[in-house]
Parts: sequence; structure tokens; C-alpha cells
Amino acid sequence: MATKAKIGVLGASGYTGSELVRMLLRHPRAEIVLLTAERSAGKPMREVFPQFSPYELPTLVAIEGLDWKALALDVVFCALPHATTQKVLKDLLAAAPETKVVDLSADFRLSDTAAYAKWYGHEHHAPELQKEAVYGLVEIHRRDIRKARLVANPGCYTSGAQLPLTPLIKAKAIDLDEIVIDAKSGMTGAGRSAKEAMLFSEVSEGFNAYGVGKHRHMAELDQEFSLAAERPVTVTFTPHLLPQNRGILSTIYVRGRRGRTAQDLHEILSKFYAKEPFVHVLPFGETPHTRHVRGSNMTMIGVAADRIEGRAIIISALDNLVKGASGQAIQNMNLIMGYPETMGIDQVALFP
Amino acid sequence: MATKAKIGVLGASGYTGSELVRMLLRHPRAEIVLLTAERSAGKPMREVFPQFSPYELPTLVAIEGLDWKALALDVVFCALPHATTQKVLKDLLAAAPETKVVDLSADFRLSDTAAYAKWYGHEHHAPELQKEAVYGLVEIHRRDIRKARLVANPGCYTSGAQLPLTPLIKAKAIDLDEIVIDAKSGMTGAGRSAKEAMLFSEVSEGFNAYGVGKHRHMAELDQEFSLAAERPVTVTFTPHLLPQNRGILSTIYVRGRRGRTAQDLHEILSKFYAKEPFVHVLPFGETPHTRHVRGSNMTMIGVAADRIEGRAIIISALDNLVKGASGQAIQNMNLIMGYPETMGIDQVALFP
Amino acid sequence: MATKAKIGVLGASGYTGSELVRMLLRHPRAEIVLLTAERSAGKPMREVFPQFSPYELPTLVAIEGLDWKALALDVVFCALPHATTQKVLKDLLAAAPETKVVDLSADFRLSDTAAYAKWYGHEHHAPELQKEAVYGLVEIHRRDIRKARLVANPGCYTSGAQLPLTPLIKAKAIDLDEIVIDAKSGMTGAGRSAKEAMLFSEVSEGFNAYGVGKHRHMAELDQEFSLAAERPVTVTFTPHLLPQNRGILSTIYVRGRRGRTAQDLHEILSKFYAKEPFVHVLPFGETPHTRHVRGSNMTMIGVAADRIEGRAIIISALDNLVKGASGQAIQNMNLIMGYPETMGIDQVALFP
Amino acid sequence: MATKAKIGVLGASGYTGSELVRMLLRHPRAEIVLLTAERSAGKPMREVFPQFSPYELPTLVAIEGLDWKALALDVVFCALPHATTQKVLKDLLAAAPETKVVDLSADFRLSDTAAYAKWYGHEHHAPELQKEAVYGLVEIHRRDIRKARLVANPGCYTSGAQLPLTPLIKAKAIDLDEIVIDAKSGMTGAGRSAKEAMLFSEVSEGFNAYGVGKHRHMAELDQEFSLAAERPVTVTFTPHLLPQNRGILSTIYVRGRRGRTAQDLHEILSKFYAKEPFVHVLPFGETPHTRHVRGSNMTMIGVAADRIEGRAIIISALDNLVKGASGQAIQNMNLIMGYPETMGIDQVALFP
Repeated sequence: MATKAKIGVLGASGYTGSELVRMLLRHPRAEIVLLTAERSAGKPMREVFPQFSPYELPTLVAIEGLDWKALALDVVFCALPHATTQKVLKDLLAAAPETKVVDLSADFRLSDTAAYAKWYGHEHHAPELQKEAVYGLVEIHRRDIRKARLVANPGCYTSGAQLPLTPLIKAKAIDLDEIVIDAKSGMTGAGRSAKEAMLFSEVSEGFNAYGVGKHRHMAELDQEFSLAAERPVTVTFTPHLLPQNRGILSTIYVRGRRGRTAQDLHEILSKFYAKEPFVHVLPFGETPHTRHVRGSNMTMIGVAADRIEGRAIIISALDNLVKGASGQAIQNMNLIMGYPETMGIDQVALFP
Repeated sequence: MATKAKIGVLGASGYTGSELVRMLLRHPRAEIVLLTAERSAGKPMREVFPQFSPYELPTLVAIEGLDWKALALDVVFCALPHATTQKVLKDLLAAAPETKVVDLSADFRLSDTAAYAKWYGHEHHAPELQKEAVYGLVEIHRRDIRKARLVANPGCYTSGAQLPLTPLIKAKAIDLDEIVIDAKSGMTGAGRSAKEAMLFSEVSEGFNAYGVGKHRHMAELDQEFSLAAERPVTVTFTPHLLPQNRGILSTIYVRGRRGRTAQDLHEILSKFYAKEPFVHVLPFGETPHTRHVRGSNMTMIGVAADRIEGRAIIISALDNLVKGASGQAIQNMNLIMGYPETMGIDQVALFP
Repeated sequence: MATKAKIGVLGASGYTGSELVRMLLRHPRAEIVLLTAERSAGKPMREVFPQFSPYELPTLVAIEGLDWKALALDVVFCALPHATTQKVLKDLLAAAPETKVVDLSADFRLSDTAAYAKWYGHEHHAPELQKEAVYGLVEIHRRDIRKARLVANPGCYTSGAQLPLTPLIKAKAIDLDEIVIDAKSGMTGAGRSAKEAMLFSEVSEGFNAYGVGKHRHMAELDQEFSLAAERPVTVTFTPHLLPQNRGILSTIYVRGRRGRTAQDLHEILSKFYAKEPFVHVLPFGETPHTRHVRGSNMTMIGVAADRIEGRAIIISALDNLVKGASGQAIQNMNLIMGYPETMGIDQVALFP
Repeated sequence: MATKAKIGVLGASGYTGSELVRMLLRHPRAEIVLLTAERSAGKPMREVFPQFSPYELPTLVAIEGLDWKALALDVVFCALPHATTQKVLKDLLAAAPETKVVDLSADFRLSDTAAYAKWYGHEHHAPELQKEAVYGLVEIHRRDIRKARLVANPGCYTSGAQLPLTPLIKAKAIDLDEIVIDAKSGMTGAGRSAKEAMLFSEVSEGFNAYGVGKHRHMAELDQEFSLAAERPVTVTFTPHLLPQNRGILSTIYVRGRRGRTAQDLHEILSKFYAKEPFVHVLPFGETPHTRHVRGSNMTMIGVAADRIEGRAIIISALDNLVKGASGQAIQNMNLIMGYPETMGIDQVALFP
């Protein structure tokens, strides 16, 4: 039997943490040896996530005092809050430079230190690592990820927007100044902290936009779209919250360049993703539902023509906790470790 | 005590029908004397809607064979399916020309017979009535409605788009060629017919767009926006289905004309609706939730600036069954009958 | 026009508070002059409950420093947390002995000081008021409530169990030693405090029991059932949490005494409630849904035969925030103030 | 690589069908070669279940005209409606006697032809097969299942009641005449047929009992409990419908025999299930949530003491589509085929 990678999950008491554990428990080459959680340190995992009661897992511990060198982890998944992450990973990689890290926070996604400071309001605490980090959207940056030590896992909203848009931008097929992204996310995207606005009774049977004109994921979109376009791109992006647990649906309004029709855009995407195991482009005119990717690492993309000539409506659906976070992270791990890319993350969607 | 209007509800076994009954049961000037339902004819209302068990209501009857003249109804609310409506109302108004009608179907919303034929695929069966009908969005057409005999109650999506956009179009404050309306509706908007795609297990925990580029409500938007603009207007409109019963949220992307900023647009709307009892414009930068208008006839509108200069994001929320259908219909009745406009429809939203 | 009662709502930032405000805003004899909330003191009501944005309401204030005598309130609704209530009401009634109080907490429901101390772990802070307080389940204690100054509004679960059971116990129609009450409540019953277990993502798409064998509402059931039976009664009671906002359904298993059949029990309940405006007994064999009482002050009761001879299954449904809390409280106010009992609380259920 | 079993799924357009396909697609020893669906015959599976769009699957075909002998299937899962099943399986096993069958309908669960005729209202069409069929609750009948050709997969409600109760009945630890089972199921338990009562808007935000005193699953409970008790047992059973897709929670009220306490019952269950991979008994006093078994083949059981001495409250949770149907069915296949029992059905629950 092949050896297993020794794995640590930092921040295991949140939803991206539990999703990592859910999938890693069934990953043939993974062995979970460390789970951290600050407030729940000392508790068994089953107390914070009862679905794991039947399984053997390490007890939750605090990060402070861990001996990274002695732990000699092969892979660390970091699902810590913004800013904390920078300090922890700086220490970790100083003590255990051989450990590979997939970071699920926003801390290493922006390669430009000025952009980081502008959007997050302070200087970065680990600017050298910020430079080293590779942006971990596999379908776009696969080659660089294979060689990386530190991967910055993309944001959930940005994955849903980049997967359909980046190939079109690269192909110079759409007008860059009129992109509107209307995104809707399930509540798990807001995390597990106890806030009044996230109570069941506040959320159920209702729908709303938030952060209108201000959401930080726009910084990531600016970076990646400008990179793809080789010129600055600024998009309009509005996030909304759905009364459901999982799923992001992004409805994207674009105009074809130089006579490109919606069909042309569909063809570009179909070709680009023809061999990708985790991106599926639907037949022209069909559009996806979040329910059909629930619990899976699949992204589905649909393209339809607007009734206004030259405009297209592109819709993507993914599970924000899987392809939008933990599934993508394991996909990144598989690349870094040289495992088959789909290993441990090939579950079929759970519907209904 | 003031006399009560004798009221008939045609199509009382659907959701707009039950909403009419819910509100009319508590309307001081309304007496429900006729309820029709074809397949459920002969049943008591409590069998099709058990919430009415404690109340006295007429037994459901079929329309065929009704003597409209003898019934001498003051007001008829017509919540019948498309096309059936035309025939029924033609007969009804021929037999009882004094009866006032508020029609909740799409049959009389388009004043242009050619537009009707194009979108609905057949000639209109009652073209004279089509001409007579007044489009019943009270805040825009109040004066005409007061004098009407036949009011075409607007569509739920179109109300959510017109209330924020029509005043801006009239004020020539926005670019007419770049309007994008991304609308999300609760499931009651899809009606009560038993279809697989509307089963709880198909809908819950999921979200999707539908009718992309094709929805018939666009015909109504074209008509009303072109009328307001005094030139043809064609908007981009995408409807989605939310896993919740009630509520439409419309996220609308516009560009200000001649230097108009988002704040300018907010000011135009605030003034326009300052005295309206059923439209509430939130402070600049705040945006509404569907849950805060649930069960009420209120529409809330918010305006925020996009980060791209000159662009604004406008969001409206209403309850598709109340302001988007039956509440609006009673508001129309109140105008026609000379009752106080808010009578019977002033319930405060039910949240949570 | 009739004069209006000057009303204060203590604890207006919780769900029972907002429900009181929702209904009092449309109560013809009520004028809200005071709204309190400790942490939100100084904020307008619209900030804690945006559905009230379109209405004029007093700004939220803290209780400390209020001059109860000068305020000269006619009625105070107290929706404060357990224990706090005792102290506040003691002060209030000392300063303003003419004010009538309807208390929605559990503090004055138990008339026995020993029972109180046992279930709540400390001596009562206002034992004289505890004696004075009248238990406010209108259909059972209407006569006493009319004369009361301080009414203890019943618990939501206990209302759902008492309305079907108390008449049967009084009629000596059921075996007192084998009553099983399996109750299921919507999430608003758990209040509005920000707890992880109440987050949307923790609750949605799931169901569980809680407080098994321990829930404090059993103290109230013991008291009221023993009173009705004129001997001690102890029932089995298990509460559960439903993934929905509103509604309590209680499934109650009983055995008829002395040959009483399920039909006999149905007849007793039908007669008992024949003239009650807020309790509706369904035809024999039909059982109620929580959705059909949503937002209304109605309780529906159904009785069916078990297949085991002599046993019956009785099911009641009510809205925990209305008949289980704020609607019941206004019903109590109406009695105390001599208003028509249904005034301001006769809304028809909101379904769907 | 080990050979794969050639598998057919009859009735693949329903929810138990799609769950079989979901798990079989990732089962190392399964190859799906036949999918049937009557009304959808000729369609690709992706049209009836879009979550399968990215996977290769056989096109749906009708059953009529299939050559069972030529198909030479190793295993058939039959997810057809009641009664149809008997005829289809009679033909199938006559033509292809080597094929193993796991039947998910109720048709072969009752071994007594008289009981069958009584509950289902007609004579059984395949009485010899009825005799041959083995009742497929693995944890109770594992030995017999290994040798079976035709397994009758148990009902979802009955699995939730039998797993906690059968070991206690066998141990003669509980009173057999006072068992009350209050069961609550997610909506997928009601199937996928388009009925008004199952529409999202009819179900969401509400809860109700149904089939009170009459549900057919009681026939199965009678059979299995009487078998375990070696005397006739009749339980009280009430099913309810939850506004969620998946999950059955059964709250069971029992009285210990001969001084058996709740702790004693907990100990019996803990021992009985100590080595079972798919039944997990929680620590005494803890009770399970349906959400923590969602999408998995796990059943969780909790035992708590009632406050009435000698009585216990036992709660079980399972996913009605997995352990309550398709997961159990594959567990049965694994036994029949000599595969490891957990193969292909060891997914960890999807929460949140």
C-alpha cells in the first residue's frame, strides 16, 4: 500500500475545516494527524461536528506551542481567519520548510502588496511568502501549482466568476468594460461564527444583497482578470445570500467583441474545458442549478444568448465549500503531492 | 355601517386567489359572494386551503353556467390562467357591463395587439377589451385607474422592475441601452400546478435561473419603459427561482446619464415616492431584503453606488403574492370603488 | 374616536417584541409609546427590525432610569429574559400600580414558590407578585384574567399541549398516567440570541430533539394539568426543533378512560371550543398543519383514532409567536382593558 | 483489477434510483449497464437528473421487451412502484434465475400472504417469490441475506424503528404493549411524483402528521417485532413530514421491563452495535440529529431517561434515501456478492 501523507488541518472547527476532514477521511493517500481549533482546543472533533462521532480523529489542539519541525507534516491545510494566517504560516514554514501548505484564507491571494494593503487596511505580515504563493485555481494555473510550496486557494465567489470568464478574456472574446457579475451564495459561505444576521430565523424564507459595491473578492477578480487580459479590468460584482446551505450561482452579463456571439463564447468554453474532470460545460442554452453540484467538486457552466444582439448570459454553479474551498484545496494538494488529480474528491453530487 | 361591495374571485384555488381571500376577509368594505375553481368545483374552500377552515366562505363553483347579470357583482378579481381569461371576461362584461374587473392574468397587460400576438403566439380574443384595459401599476397610473372598468394588474417581476426604474426613465436620468435586471423570485410565483420541477425536494437547497433571454414579462417591461421613455427601450432581464415561498428581489444595474450619480438617482426616487404608502425608499447605500416585506403590500427600494464611476446598483424587494399580485389588485379595487387606497391591505410584514 | 391605550413593550428587540409591535401597529385601541432594548438602546426600531422602516415608532431606550409613574402607561408587555423580569416588574408596579402588565417570560407562570425554586434554581425575587399573577391561557382562565393586573402569558409549548388536553382532563375522559406529548417547534421559539447552534447552516435541512426529559415547560404542564385533574399529573414531554421559522405541532398520545373512544374525545373538544374565536377543532380524523395557522392567533386541533383500541392521537397546531406568545398576550390585554377579545389579532393565516 | 458486477437499476428516474446511481458510480465492483424508466424511456439520464451530466451512463429504456436472459445481469436493484414490482420480478427471475435482486419496494417485505392481502387490498401476484424473499435489514438478518437471491429491502420508517427496538425486544428488556413511535421524515420519502401537496410552496415552512393510525409500514413493524418477541406485538406509530429533503428521526417512548432503566437499555444497544460499521450508539443522554447522517449510510441512536421512572426515550436518525433505501440496498448487494460490506457506501455525512 502506498504511503500516506501526514496531514494537518488548521482551523478545523469551521465549515471549510469539516469539509476537508469529510473528504480526507476517504482519501486513500491522506492521514489526518493534526486538527487545530483555538476556542475548542481540548475537545474531541465529535463535539464540534457530531457527524464525525463514528470516526477516529485527533483531538483538537491550539496552535500555540506546536512544534512544526517535530510534527514533520507533509501537508497543512490552513483554514484560519484572515491576518492570523500570515503569522501562523510564517512561523510554520520557518520551522518546517519542507511542509507544503494550501491556504484557504484570503491572505496570500493578492500578489501585489499595495493591492493587499488597500483592500485589507494594513501592511502584509509576510511579504516574502506573499511573493512565493501561487494562486490555486487549478484549471488556470495548474503548471505553477505543481511546483508550489504555498498555494493560495481562491475565494468561492471568484472561482465561480473566473472559471467562465478567464478563458473568454484570454481569447479576447468579450468586451472588458461591461462585465456584470450577479452572484448568489449559500449561507455556509458566511462561515460559522455566531452572528444574529446568520440565525436561521433571520435567513430562512428571505433573500438579500450585501456588501454592494464593496466586497473584497473584487480585488482577486481585478488581479486575475487583469492578468488574463494583460490590461486593467474592473468588473461590477454584487453578492447575495441564499436561504440554502451550499452553492454559488453566478449570473454573468457580457457583450461579445468583434461580432462574437453567445454561441461563439460557448464554443470557446467547451473547448477549454473539454478534458477537465471538474468543469462541465452544458449544451448551449442550458443553464446549471446549484443543487446539481451539491457536495461535489464539479463546476457547471451554461451559456445562453440574450435577446439583445451581441450579448450573452453566462451562468456558473459550484458548491462553495467544495470547488469553492475544500475540494479545490485537496485538488491543489493532489497536484503538489503528485497524486492523481481527482483522488478523494470525485464524489458525485448529492441531489436531492 | 357602510355598504359592502359584492365580490367574486375567479380562480380561487390558486395562490393569488387565496391571497385575495385572506385580505378580503378582513377588508371592511368587501363581502366575498362568489369563489370559482374548475377542478375543485363543489368543494368547500377549506378543502383546497385549510387555513380558511375557521371562516365562512362560499362553496367553490365552476364558471360555466354562472349568470353574471343576476349575480350583479360589484367587483370581480380574475385569477384565471392565460387565454381562458379573455373569453371569460368578454362574456362577463357583456352580460354585466357595470361590474368592475381587476384581472391578475397577463391577458390585458399589453395594449398593442401585435405585441400580444408576438409574445403569446395567437390573436387576442377580446381586442376591444384589450384597448379598454388600464395598466394597473397604481403608483404610475393612478389617475387612469380611478376611472377604469377593467384593470390589468401588472406582473410580479415587472412591478419589481418598474417601481424603481420608471421614475428614473421619466426623469431621463439613466442610460436606456445598458439596463440589466437580475430578478429572483420565491416559488409561489410559479403557481400551484403539480409539476415535478416544483416539488419540495427538487427546489429546496438549490437555486437556478430559468427562461434565460425569453421570459414573457419582458413584453410588459418593453411597453411600460418605452412609454415612459417616449422611445423604444429593450432591457436585459434574467429571472431566477429562490428556495423560499415569497418575495422578489430585483438587482438592477444602470448607468447615470449626463453625470447623474447614484446619489442623484436615489434623490429622484426618494422624492417620487415620498408620499406613497406602499413604496419605501431606504437611506442611500442601504438595500432591502425580501423577508422584510413578506405578507405585506410594501415595496422597498435601495440605491447604492457601484465602484465603477457613473454606475449604480438599485435593488427592490416586494412580496410577489401581495404587491406583486393580490395586494396590488385590492389597491386597484380601492381606487376604482373610491375606498381609501390602503383599506384592507395595510398589514405590517410578517418577519421572521 | 375611542381613546387609545398607552402601551410599552419591554424587550422590543426580540421576536416576541417585534410580533407585539407588528400587531399593535394595526390595533385600533393601541398606541405604542415606549419600546425598550438594552443593547440596542438609542437605536431606531428600524435598525433592529427593518420591516418597520416605513412606520413611525419610538426610539429604543434602556429600562434603567425610566420614570414609570410619569410614563403612566396603561399596559406594559414584558418580553424580557427570565429573572430580569421579576426585578423590573416589581419596580414598575411599585411605582405605577395602576399599570396593567402582560408578562411573556416564564417568571410568573408557576404559582408555587417551591416549584419555581426547584425548576429555576433560585428563590423568586417577587413572591407577592407571583401570588397575584393570573395564568393567562384565555380559553381556560378567561374569567380570572379579566380582573387581573398582572397576567403570566403561557409558554408556547404548554399552550399547544393545554388547549387539547385540559378539557379532556377536566372531563375525566383520559388516563392521566400515560400521556405522551411529542412536540415540534419552529426556530423562532429559541429566540434571537446569536448562538452557533441556531445558525441557518446548522439548522437547515435537519431535525433533532433537545432537552430530552428536562425541559422547563414541564413545570407549567404539571401545574396546569394537576389543577385541572385535582390530583398530581406528570406527563412525558419531548421538544424538537423544526427547520422552519414558526409553528408548534404537538402530537399527543392518550388512552380513553372508562371506554371513552377517540370519537368521544373529539366530541368533548368540539363542544368545549364551539364558540371560541381562536381555537378550531377539525372534523374527526383530520389533523392540522402548522402552515395553516402561520402568522395568525388560531389554534387548530385534530383527533384521530389509533389502531390500538382505546387509544387516540390528538394533534394541535399553533404559531408559537402568535397564539404561543404575542397574539395571546394581546388577547389578554383585550380582556383586561375591556376591548373586544379579537381586536387587532384577527389576521387570517399567511399561507403559503 | 477485480471483475465488476453487471448491474441494472429498474426505476432509475425516482430518488432511490438516482441514489443508487450516485453510489454505484463510485463503487469499485459495480458497472451500471441498464437503467429503466417508463415515462422517460429514450432519454439520457442527464435529462431526468442533471447532476449526472458529467458522467457516462446508459440511456433510459422501458422494461417491456427487455431480454433478461441475454442481459445476464449479476444484480438488479428494483425501485419500481408497488405491485408492478411483483410482475416484473416474476418474469425476470423466470428468465434469468441466476440474477440476484434487491427490491426496494414493499412488495416482498411481508412474508405472510394474508397480512399482505389485508394491508395492500389484493392477493400477491408472486407468492412463491414472497416466500423466498429475505427481509433485508442487514444488522438483524445478515446471515440469511448472504445466501439470498431475492432481498426485500426494508422500509425507511421501519429501519429507523427496528434498529433501536429489535435488540431491546429480543433481550426482553421493554414492555411490548406501550411502545409509541413518533416518526418524522424528510420529503424525499414521499417520492418524486408531481402532487400538489408536495410542491415546495405547500411544504416549506410547515409541518404535519399524515396517515395517522393507518400507515402501511406498520405491517412491517408488526411482522418484525412479533418475530423478535416471539409473540404478537402492535405498536403505535405516527409519521410526519419535515420541510427538509432527507432524514428520518424516530422518537420512541418505551417502558423498561423488570426494573430495566434507560441506562440498561443503552447498554444493550451499545453492545449489540459495538462492531457494526453503520450503526453508531451515542453516549447515554445524547440524542442524534438527522443532519449528521445526511447522505451517509450511518444510523445514529441515542437513549435518554424520561423523568417518569422506568421510562426511556430512544431516538434514531438515518438518511431515508441511504440507510433507509439505496445505501441499505447496496449493503445487501455487497453481502450477496461477497464484497466487503462497506464497499461504495462509506461516504461520510454531508453537513452542513
